[in-house]
Amino acid sequence: HVSSKGEQKPFQRVIDVSSGDPHRAGMQPLSFARQVGLAVCLYPKLLKESSFPVDVRQRAEKLLGACNGGSVGSYSASSCGIPQIQKSVAEFITRRDGGVASDPEDIIFSSGSQRTLKLVLHLLSSGQGPTQTGVLTPLPCPHTLPMLLDEVGVKLVPYRLLEERGWTLELEELHRALKAARRHCEPRAIYISNPGNPTGHVQDLKTIEEVIRFAASKRLVLLVEEVYQDSVFGQDKKFLSYKKVLFEMGASYSERVEMVSFHSISAGTMGECGLRGGYMEVINMDLLVKNFLTSMQGPCSLPVLPQLALEIMVNPPSPGDASYEVFTQVRRTLQNILKYIFLRVCTFLNGVPGMSCQQAMGGVFIYPCLHLPAEIIQERSGLRADVLYCKKFLEEEGVCLGPGSENGHDDENYHIRLCISAPAAVLEDVLKRLRSFHLRIQDRHH
Amino acid sequence: HVSSKGEQKPFQRVIDVSSGDPHRAGMQPLSFARQVGLAVCLYPKLLKESSFPVDVRQRAEKLLGACNGGSVGSYSASSCGIPQIQKSVAEFITRRDGGVASDPEDIIFSSGSQRTLKLVLHLLSSGQGPTQTGVLTPLPCPHTLPMLLDEVGVKLVPYRLLEERGWTLELEELHRALKAARRHCEPRAIYISNPGNPTGHVQDLKTIEEVIRFAASKRLVLLVEEVYQDSVFGQDKKFLSYKKVLFEMGASYSERVEMVSFHSISAGTMGECGLRGGYMEVINMDLLVKNFLTSMQGPCSLPVLPQLALEIMVNPPSPGDASYEVFTQVRRTLQNILKYIFLRVCTFLNGVPGMSCQQAMGGVFIYPCLHLPAEIIQERSGLRADVLYCKKFLEEEGVCLGPGSENGHDDENYHIRLCISAPAAVLEDVLKRLRSFHLRIQDRHH
Repeated sequence: HVSSKGEQKPFQRVIDVSSGDPHRAGMQPLSFARQVGLAVCLYPKLLKESSFPVDVRQRAEKLLGACNGGSVGSYSASSCGIPQIQKSVAEFITRRDGGVASDPEDIIFSSGSQRTLKLVLHLLSSGQGPTQTGVLTPLPCPHTLPMLLDEVGVKLVPYRLLEERGWTLELEELHRALKAARRHCEPRAIYISNPGNPTGHVQDLKTIEEVIRFAASKRLVLLVEEVYQDSVFGQDKKFLSYKKVLFEMGASYSERVEMVSFHSISAGTMGECGLRGGYMEVINMDLLVKNFLTSMQGPCSLPVLPQLALEIMVNPPSPGDASYEVFTQVRRTLQNILKYIFLRVCTFLNGVPGMSCQQAMGGVFIYPCLHLPAEIIQERSGLRADVLYCKKFLEEEGVCLGPGSENGHDDENYHIRLCISAPAAVLEDVLKRLRSFHLRIQDRHH
Repeated sequence: HVSSKGEQKPFQRVIDVSSGDPHRAGMQPLSFARQVGLAVCLYPKLLKESSFPVDVRQRAEKLLGACNGGSVGSYSASSCGIPQIQKSVAEFITRRDGGVASDPEDIIFSSGSQRTLKLVLHLLSSGQGPTQTGVLTPLPCPHTLPMLLDEVGVKLVPYRLLEERGWTLELEELHRALKAARRHCEPRAIYISNPGNPTGHVQDLKTIEEVIRFAASKRLVLLVEEVYQDSVFGQDKKFLSYKKVLFEMGASYSERVEMVSFHSISAGTMGECGLRGGYMEVINMDLLVKNFLTSMQGPCSLPVLPQLALEIMVNPPSPGDASYEVFTQVRRTLQNILKYIFLRVCTFLNGVPGMSCQQAMGGVFIYPCLHLPAEIIQERSGLRADVLYCKKFLEEEGVCLGPGSENGHDDENYHIRLCISAPAAVLEDVLKRLRSFHLRIQDRHH
């Protein structure tokens, strides 16, 4: 196979498993979502299409009724978005959290969790030198985060997750990190990713309570990325929202701790990255701050379709609906497959000499540790060993992995990031190539 | 009829004709656009739907082929958007301008012309007091512009369009405005709206050449909003792009004048306001500036669907395509109706005593002048007479008009803004109410 520059390559096409983009990798979107909110709402003549289940058509009619002029082609009502959908999201959160109330006015829509996070960080950003805003950030963190913090002028204050315990968050490490940071900046917030991107760790009740107490006592804003909340696969593990735990800790916490929780239609079983949509729930923030966050969306109204997709995400078909059986089956199958894939990939990678991998419990990433020969680490290319490893793997095998450096890792441990939300055949091919490449690299340096 | 606060109102529902949102007003979207790019691309099973014309399915397949992983649910390729669609837009511009070439790399996508304009203004904004950036702005201007300029810290430098000549732009007025501004700020750009929002005026070749020569000699960046380029209805009038005229004026202009032209899927026959999409073509800008404009879109990829809608807008069905006949007929009918409506509304309003209206030639707004009794002008409400007029009209008749103040008008002439892209029955009702309200207001003050 020959590249566009005429080079012979040992692969037919490049596979990119470095970011969490399931549709790009070949995964199928959820039919219900695409049928309802999207195909039928865009082309309402399909309301008469009898091959669509009746609840698809009913939902589409309801959603169109919430749009100005009954059309997705109209500007949405206010800069907050469509009020009925704010309400749907709040009801979803209340159900998810076993009755802990959510106020529709705390829900702010955006074009994805990255953009919402950026707005919040912009607001937090101030000062220079020792007064510059710092944000306590897990290492490893989502690979988009270090650049984002840098862009808005906020200092990344690292706290390290404990790999040997399956990437747990340890309270002592938070204290250490905060203390070490105080000389260089002014920490004003703590960032959490749960289920963890890229670690796949799912936090337990005790950890979440510790983090909330820590944030409360140190007066830190809690920024909680919870975009993989529907993607927990670990045995006996389940997702607990920070909001629920916060409100079950009593009024001294629930009325005081400032918290923002981020969710998105790009992640999890929805996986609609190309639509660009999400929301944040803003708790205990000053009303002026909240209004400012809403108004910062810009002078224009929000896109309508991502809001519809969000409504469908938080309101999947329920028992009795015509689509319920099929939808539930598809989603359950998808979740079972991901569970199997996680087990398979971890076991496989742990079987490769010079590689080790914690068992992920959720999310879409696997983040194995590389034990590399000293020669590759000391190579004089000027690149970190993990970056060099990914570069060579791309050149030799046509697969794009993410180096741990992008996840903020800058120490002597080298990691790679691999999105497992891809069709089985693609993934097996990637694993086979990774194993043979890894063995080859070690041979070369012996 | 009773309002939610229990008041008796002489209308059943509020009609908003203050902004250009045709679908909200009840206009139908273009079937081809909705079928292809949107319904079929979102739900590719519809590719097998034989009730759709064959070119709808072919186009959808082609567009899906341009998406990562063949899905609209994937992140788009680069921060510039989907390269094939940049190319389509450049080809559209080249065709439109009779062969004047357009470079795909000059096309930058965004979520609508407001947002793109804001990015450009941000870049232009600098200084304070006499060094603050000023932008020469027509009065009247689009009603979203004054707030936008204010938001980015740019000074509005007004130049007045000549109402009695049908809202023409006069060269002497540009010179006067520039001279008057020099004491208060540093004018760095000139903003043009053609076809004019809200005036409906369509500029001729001579005017465009004068503006280009003026911008060149005064070293001003040309910011040209051309979102109504497909909506010209005046007898013997046609749309001429600034780009085409610039390039036909020879290299001393075409290689030198910095220009940005804005287009959008929200305006004109497309009218897809809720999707949020558009592009700007950036001419003669430094490469670094262009790259910065691209990167300022943020850390996330661009939404995919608005890009598909843009592709369909610039590539409607062509002769020989299965959809061509119907599509062309629908669009022609739509344009004929708008032409008729413009004539009808202008004639009607000119027949109302105390109202006068220039004949609009394009766009979607009518912008009549109100000759108001001295009493309403001097009323002690603290409101400008046009704002008060719109407020009372909304309270008494349930119709939301736009006061000329929003379009930057601040002198002794009072105007209202009225979007005519609404179903005939709605519009006739609005006209009837406007006439009777206007006569009532004059009676009250006699």
